[in-house]
Amino acid sequence: MIAKDFAELAVFSSEKMAKTDVAHGETLFAGLNCFEPGQQHAAHAHAGQDKLYVVLEGDAEIQVGDEKQLVSAGGGAFAPSGVMHSVRNRGEKRLIVLAVLAPPPTRS
Amino acid sequence: MIAKDFAELAVFSSEKMAKTDVAHGETLFAGLNCFEPGQQHAAHAHAGQDKLYVVLEGDAEIQVGDEKQLVSAGGGAFAPSGVMHSVRNRGEKRLIVLAVLAPPPTRS
Repeated sequence: MIAKDFAELAVFSSEKMAKTDVAHGETLFAGLNCFEPGQQHAAHAHAGQDKLYVVLEGDAEIQVGDEKQLVSAGGGAFAPSGVMHSVRNRGEKRLIVLAVLAPPPTRS
Repeated sequence: MIAKDFAELAVFSSEKMAKTDVAHGETLFAGLNCFEPGQQHAAHAHAGQDKLYVVLEGDAEIQVGDEKQLVSAGGGAFAPSGVMHSVRNRGEKRLIVLAVLAPPPTRS
Protein backbone atom coordinates (compact mmCIF):
# COMPACT_ATOMS: atom_id res chain seq x y z
CA MET A 1 0.00 0.00 0.00
CA ILE A 2 1.36 3.42 -1.01
CA ALA A 3 -0.29 6.62 0.24
CA LYS A 4 0.46 10.02 -1.29
CA ASP A 5 -0.96 11.71 1.81
CA PHE A 6 -1.82 9.77 4.97
CA ALA A 7 -3.82 12.75 6.31
CA GLU A 8 -6.37 12.36 3.51
CA LEU A 9 -7.58 9.23 5.30
CA ALA A 10 -8.53 11.19 8.44
CA VAL A 11 -11.98 10.97 9.99
CA PHE A 12 -13.28 13.24 12.75
CA SER A 13 -16.02 13.10 15.36
CA SER A 14 -17.45 15.99 17.34
CA GLU A 15 -17.87 13.52 20.24
CA LYS A 16 -14.28 12.43 20.81
CA MET A 17 -10.96 11.66 19.18
CA ALA A 18 -11.63 9.45 16.14
CA LYS A 19 -9.49 6.59 14.83
CA THR A 20 -9.11 5.04 11.42
CA ASP A 21 -6.88 2.23 10.15
CA VAL A 22 -4.03 2.88 7.73
CA ALA A 23 -2.39 -0.54 7.61
CA HIS A 24 -2.89 -3.76 9.54
CA GLY A 25 -0.06 -6.25 9.18
CA GLU A 26 0.85 -9.37 11.08
CA THR A 27 3.46 -7.64 13.22
CA LEU A 28 2.73 -3.89 12.80
CA PHE A 29 -0.39 -1.73 12.82
CA ALA A 30 -0.71 1.90 11.70
CA GLY A 31 -3.71 4.14 12.18
CA LEU A 32 -4.67 7.79 12.41
CA ASN A 33 -5.75 9.46 15.64
CA CYS A 34 -7.83 12.50 14.65
CA PHE A 35 -8.58 15.29 17.10
CA GLU A 36 -10.85 18.30 16.85
CA PRO A 37 -9.52 21.29 18.83
CA GLY A 38 -9.51 20.47 22.55
CA GLN A 39 -9.96 16.72 22.13
CA GLN A 40 -7.51 14.34 23.75
CA HIS A 41 -6.46 10.74 24.06
CA ALA A 42 -6.21 10.26 27.82
CA ALA A 43 -3.09 8.83 29.41
CA HIS A 44 -2.78 5.09 29.03
CA ALA A 45 -0.15 2.39 28.60
CA HIS A 46 0.07 -0.88 26.69
CA ALA A 47 1.74 -3.92 28.19
CA GLY A 48 3.99 -5.64 25.65
CA GLN A 49 3.26 -3.11 22.90
CA ASP A 50 5.49 -0.25 21.72
CA LYS A 51 3.95 2.80 20.02
CA LEU A 52 5.39 5.47 17.74
CA TYR A 53 3.54 8.72 17.11
CA VAL A 54 4.16 10.91 14.05
CA VAL A 55 2.32 14.25 13.90
CA LEU A 56 1.00 14.84 10.38
CA GLU A 57 -1.05 18.03 10.82
CA GLY A 58 -1.77 20.42 13.68
CA ASP A 59 -0.26 20.93 17.12
CA ALA A 60 -0.09 18.07 19.61
CA GLU A 61 0.73 18.19 23.28
CA ILE A 62 2.32 14.78 23.74
CA GLN A 63 3.22 13.27 27.08
CA VAL A 64 5.36 10.16 27.49
CA GLY A 65 6.16 9.24 31.06
CA ASP A 66 7.31 12.46 32.76
CA GLU A 67 8.15 14.24 29.49
CA LYS A 68 5.66 16.63 27.86
CA GLN A 69 6.17 18.68 24.69
CA LEU A 70 4.22 20.55 22.03
CA VAL A 71 4.93 18.85 18.71
CA SER A 72 3.93 19.83 15.17
CA ALA A 73 4.12 18.11 11.78
CA GLY A 74 7.36 16.19 11.32
CA GLY A 75 7.78 15.47 15.01
CA GLY A 76 6.44 12.75 17.24
CA ALA A 77 7.22 10.44 20.10
CA PHE A 78 8.07 6.88 21.09
CA ALA A 79 6.16 5.29 23.95
CA PRO A 80 7.78 2.00 24.93
CA SER A 81 5.69 -0.85 26.28
CA GLY A 82 4.29 -0.06 29.71
CA VAL A 83 5.04 3.69 29.67
CA MET A 84 2.07 6.04 30.12
CA HIS A 85 1.39 8.35 27.19
CA SER A 86 -1.26 10.82 26.09
CA VAL A 87 -2.02 13.25 23.25
CA ARG A 88 -4.04 16.47 23.38
CA ASN A 89 -4.92 18.88 20.58
CA ARG A 90 -3.61 22.19 21.89
CA GLY A 91 -4.13 24.07 18.63
CA GLU A 92 -7.05 25.81 16.98
CA LYS A 93 -6.85 23.53 13.94
CA ARG A 94 -7.59 19.85 13.61
CA LEU A 95 -4.80 17.51 14.71
CA ILE A 96 -3.88 14.33 12.84
CA VAL A 97 -1.39 11.90 14.38
CA LEU A 98 -0.14 8.69 12.80
CA ALA A 99 0.11 6.00 15.47
CA VAL A 100 2.20 2.89 14.76
CA LEU A 101 1.81 -0.05 17.14
CA ALA A 102 3.60 -3.37 17.40
CA PRO A 103 2.31 -5.94 17.85
CA PRO A 104 -1.04 -4.92 16.30
CA PRO A 105 -3.98 -4.46 18.64
CA THR A 106 -6.42 -7.33 18.75
CA ARG A 107 -9.69 -6.48 17.08
CA SER A 108 -12.62 -6.32 19.45
CA MET B 1 11.24 9.96 23.81
CA ILE B 2 9.61 13.01 22.22
CA ALA B 3 11.09 14.58 19.05
CA LYS B 4 10.09 18.03 17.83
CA ASP B 5 11.48 17.19 14.39
CA PHE B 6 12.54 13.68 13.43
CA ALA B 7 14.38 15.01 10.36
CA GLU B 8 16.88 16.83 12.59
CA LEU B 9 18.33 13.41 13.43
CA ALA B 10 19.23 12.71 9.78
CA VAL B 11 22.72 11.69 8.72
CA PHE B 12 23.94 11.51 5.13
CA SER B 13 26.74 9.78 3.28
CA SER B 14 28.07 10.57 -0.19
CA GLU B 15 28.71 6.82 -0.60
CA LYS B 16 25.21 5.43 -0.16
CA MET B 17 21.90 5.79 1.63
CA ALA B 18 22.61 6.34 5.33
CA LYS B 19 20.64 5.05 8.32
CA THR B 20 20.26 6.26 11.86
CA ASP B 21 18.18 4.98 14.77
CA VAL B 22 15.23 6.94 16.15
CA ALA B 23 13.81 4.46 18.65
CA HIS B 24 14.56 0.83 19.46
CA GLY B 25 11.88 -0.89 21.50
CA GLU B 26 11.21 -4.52 22.30
CA THR B 27 8.55 -4.89 19.63
CA LEU B 28 9.05 -1.86 17.32
CA PHE B 29 12.03 -0.12 15.73
CA ALA B 30 12.08 3.29 14.04
CA GLY B 31 14.95 4.77 12.06
CA LEU B 32 15.67 7.28 9.36
CA ASN B 33 16.75 6.33 5.84
CA CYS B 34 18.60 9.34 4.41
CA PHE B 35 19.23 9.70 0.68
CA GLU B 36 21.32 12.18 -1.27
CA PRO B 37 19.86 12.90 -4.75
CA GLY B 38 19.98 9.74 -6.86
CA GLN B 39 20.66 7.36 -3.98
CA GLN B 40 18.39 4.36 -3.44
CA HIS B 41 17.58 1.48 -1.15
CA ALA B 42 17.45 -1.44 -3.54
CA ALA B 43 14.47 -3.78 -3.64
CA HIS B 44 14.39 -6.24 -0.77
CA ALA B 45 11.90 -8.06 1.47
CA HIS B 46 11.85 -9.11 5.11
CA ALA B 47 10.40 -12.44 6.17
CA GLY B 48 8.21 -12.07 9.25
CA GLN B 49 8.72 -8.30 9.48
CA ASP B 50 6.29 -5.54 8.42
CA LYS B 51 7.59 -2.08 7.50
CA LEU B 52 5.92 1.32 7.36
CA TYR B 53 7.56 4.22 5.51
CA VAL B 54 6.71 7.87 6.24
CA VAL B 55 8.34 10.49 3.99
CA LEU B 56 9.53 13.43 6.09
CA GLU B 57 11.39 15.56 3.51
CA GLY B 58 12.04 15.34 -0.22
CA ASP B 59 10.57 13.25 -3.02
CA ALA B 60 10.65 9.45 -2.84
CA GLU B 61 9.92 6.96 -5.55
CA ILE B 62 8.56 4.09 -3.51
CA GLN B 63 7.84 0.65 -4.87
CA VAL B 64 5.90 -2.01 -2.94
CA GLY B 65 5.24 -5.18 -4.88
CA ASP B 66 3.94 -4.11 -8.29
CA GLU B 67 2.91 -0.62 -7.14
CA LYS B 68 5.22 2.38 -7.68
CA GLN B 69 4.50 6.01 -6.79
CA LEU B 70 6.26 9.31 -6.21
CA VAL B 71 5.58 10.33 -2.61
CA SER B 72 6.44 13.54 -0.76
CA ALA B 73 6.25 14.63 2.89
CA GLY B 74 3.15 13.37 4.64
CA GLY B 75 2.85 10.28 2.47
CA GLY B 76 4.40 6.86 2.71
CA ALA B 77 3.84 3.17 2.25
CA PHE B 78 3.25 -0.12 4.01
CA ALA B 79 5.33 -3.13 2.99
CA PRO B 80 3.94 -6.29 4.60
CA SER B 81 6.22 -9.15 5.53
CA GLY B 82 7.66 -10.86 2.47
CA VAL B 83 6.68 -8.18 -0.06
CA MET B 84 9.50 -6.61 -2.10
CA HIS B 85 9.97 -2.87 -1.59
CA SER B 86 12.44 -0.16 -2.56
CA VAL B 87 12.96 3.59 -2.18
CA ARG B 88 14.78 5.94 -4.55
CA ASN B 89 15.46 9.67 -4.22
CA ARG B 90 13.99 11.07 -7.43
CA GLY B 91 14.28 14.70 -6.36
CA GLU B 92 17.06 17.26 -6.45
CA LYS B 93 16.93 17.70 -2.69
CA ARG B 94 17.90 15.32 0.08
CA LEU B 95 15.28 12.72 0.98
CA ILE B 96 14.50 11.66 4.54
CA VAL B 97 12.21 8.70 5.17
CA LEU B 98 11.12 7.40 8.57
CA ALA B 99 11.10 3.59 8.49
CA VAL B 100 9.20 1.72 11.20
CA LEU B 101 9.84 -2.03 11.51
CA ALA B 102 8.26 -4.70 13.66
CA PRO B 103 9.71 -6.79 15.07
CA PRO B 104 12.95 -4.78 15.41
CA PRO B 105 15.92 -5.88 13.30
CA THR B 106 18.53 -7.88 15.14
CA ARG B 107 21.71 -5.91 15.68
CA SER B 108 24.68 -7.26 13.79
